[in-house]
Amino acid sequence: MDQEYMRMALDLAVRARGRTSPNPLVGAVVVRDGEIVGRGYHARAGLPHAEIVALAQAGEAARGSTLYVSLEPCCHFGRTGPCTEAVIAAGVRRVVTAMRDPNPKVAGRGIARLREAGVEVTEDVLRDEAARLNEIFIKYITTGRPFVALKVAVSLDGKIATRTGDSRWITGGPAREYAHRLRDTYDALLVGRGTVVKDDPSLTTRLPGGGRDPVRIVLDSLARIPESSRVLSGESTAPVIVAVTGQAPRTRVAGLESRGVQVVRCGPGPAVDLEVLLRELAAREITSVMVEGGATVHASFLEARFVDKLHWFVAPKIVGGVEAPGAVAGRGVGRISEAVGLERVRRIELGNDLCIEGYPVWGGAADVHRDY
Amino acid sequence: MDQEYMRMALDLAVRARGRTSPNPLVGAVVVRDGEIVGRGYHARAGLPHAEIVALAQAGEAARGSTLYVSLEPCCHFGRTGPCTEAVIAAGVRRVVTAMRDPNPKVAGRGIARLREAGVEVTEDVLRDEAARLNEIFIKYITTGRPFVALKVAVSLDGKIATRTGDSRWITGGPAREYAHRLRDTYDALLVGRGTVVKDDPSLTTRLPGGGRDPVRIVLDSLARIPESSRVLSGESTAPVIVAVTGQAPRTRVAGLESRGVQVVRCGPGPAVDLEVLLRELAAREITSVMVEGGATVHASFLEARFVDKLHWFVAPKIVGGVEAPGAVAGRGVGRISEAVGLERVRRIELGNDLCIEGYPVWGGAADVHRDY
Repeated sequence: MDQEYMRMALDLAVRARGRTSPNPLVGAVVVRDGEIVGRGYHARAGLPHAEIVALAQAGEAARGSTLYVSLEPCCHFGRTGPCTEAVIAAGVRRVVTAMRDPNPKVAGRGIARLREAGVEVTEDVLRDEAARLNEIFIKYITTGRPFVALKVAVSLDGKIATRTGDSRWITGGPAREYAHRLRDTYDALLVGRGTVVKDDPSLTTRLPGGGRDPVRIVLDSLARIPESSRVLSGESTAPVIVAVTGQAPRTRVAGLESRGVQVVRCGPGPAVDLEVLLRELAAREITSVMVEGGATVHASFLEARFVDKLHWFVAPKIVGGVEAPGAVAGRGVGRISEAVGLERVRRIELGNDLCIEGYPVWGGAADVHRDY
Repeated sequence: MDQEYMRMALDLAVRARGRTSPNPLVGAVVVRDGEIVGRGYHARAGLPHAEIVALAQAGEAARGSTLYVSLEPCCHFGRTGPCTEAVIAAGVRRVVTAMRDPNPKVAGRGIARLREAGVEVTEDVLRDEAARLNEIFIKYITTGRPFVALKVAVSLDGKIATRTGDSRWITGGPAREYAHRLRDTYDALLVGRGTVVKDDPSLTTRLPGGGRDPVRIVLDSLARIPESSRVLSGESTAPVIVAVTGQAPRTRVAGLESRGVQVVRCGPGPAVDLEVLLRELAAREITSVMVEGGATVHASFLEARFVDKLHWFVAPKIVGGVEAPGAVAGRGVGRISEAVGLERVRRIELGNDLCIEGYPVWGGAADVHRDY
């Protein structure tokens, strides 16, 4: 039964996907005498934690109950009070958790506090599912860098555009809608200057039921993107960050700042230092970034091994041409055995297209498995 | 019930896949009073047709029976006598067929002969399945050109090798075994000179239970492939055809011929005239060819619209690199809407790899459907 209730808690947690940043997704279920008396999830940073919502719904019924919560309850004062004290005060008899909070401020101390207060604790129920659910938060809180997803849409022959630069549309409607759902989920979207110049994208989330625009980030070492670019047009209220280098002319930087753009200086140049950029983004509580092109940007992130997840859309068509750009520029690997592999691969059928998702395995070492 | 018995006939027919060339795959079932009294399939050119095998097995029970046969019985003298006469002589009461023989020598005349003799005939039961089963024969017999399949193995980013030329192996074991099963099915395999020089493949069929080597064809306009090439080594008894142009030096051609190679002159050059080659292959009763590389050969066949089917293997890995060769060289299309599309797409999971199969739709006109 523990697993069933925990699955409910996870299903509750996922409802807020893309809305809780910089916090994790958490769901909770309160069970008393085999009956569910409270349900809750963390809806948004600043709003109550999942346990608090569920316990409030349970009211007096929480006394003597079992609390299922997908992440270890917190024991520190953040934007809200520590959940451990609320759990103890409510008279919960037993707490079941899916995983410890990877946040160094918690990291088992919440569990210890509960046990100290006489609450029975069962850990690691559906731990793998819980870790997958919070892959973004775990990466962010343990490394001080955002989770980086790479989203690419290619033809069967790996082209992201024709020789003339035409790229609309490689994939069909269902795949594009899924891509917009991803935009709705990740905190930020990142493209290179070339993409802004060539495609002039708005980088907003366009979904049938609306959606939340991500923070929009442009790599533009010399601050040269045209002021008329759609991404700067104010079509969206989502922040725009332009990552430049020390070589960017002061007047161009000032021009961008006067338009409300946040300009971030990332290293001396000539290229934007991605490590500096990612740390700067994390400092701004941007927990996840989806990289969307072009081919040189893809290569930079892959070569630096900064990619945590791939969303690779493949359309059943052939573009051809030596000059048509492939998905990943740069130098590439010398041997097939050095290619970037994928693990935990998932294939999603989207109309005629396919989205292949997975986690990179660097240098073909398929047995290296990152374990949180 | 007609459909069920016809499905049995189709299942029998497929047992000889890759073995009946230049003949079609045909299966037959004889049913008398609801009981199957005979089964047969055409096993190899020169051996009896499916109907004859099934009727022989039925013996006297064939009298008053229903004969299910996946292709219209022949009415002409080929390597064997006309099946229509055998059917009539056996006293079959009713014949059910899946499709008319596309062979202009038959084309409904077998059906007409049966009806003329008082045999009841029902046509077109499971016609689509039967046409798919014999896509190779239909193409060959109606156009005078072999059926051309394009087999490509790419990384997610469409690379068929790294920048250094390393291509072993892009796909894993299950995908490679499937590729060898394809070699076992198609009459011939075709590669360009570059592939012979770079990879020195034997172009044989290597399957756990053995297999039949295809005829091996090399496009080599100036007859320059090294005499030490594995494909010329005599490792296999399958014929080798080298397609050259009028520009190929006479001594090189003679050298190849002295090694037992069949040299076919295809146009004045500089490139091998594929139309001439394909007609020449058909004249040699080669009904199908699988094209296996490299990128320029793929482009030539695609640009000439000579590809009938694609077997596109995608491995979940990223090679990267501007200089690493993509799957399709040449000029490519100018607009995405002009890309070669795929219809009747089938996805086969092979370990971590995927084989995407389909039939090309030229110029993105997805509504154009070839109907045999």
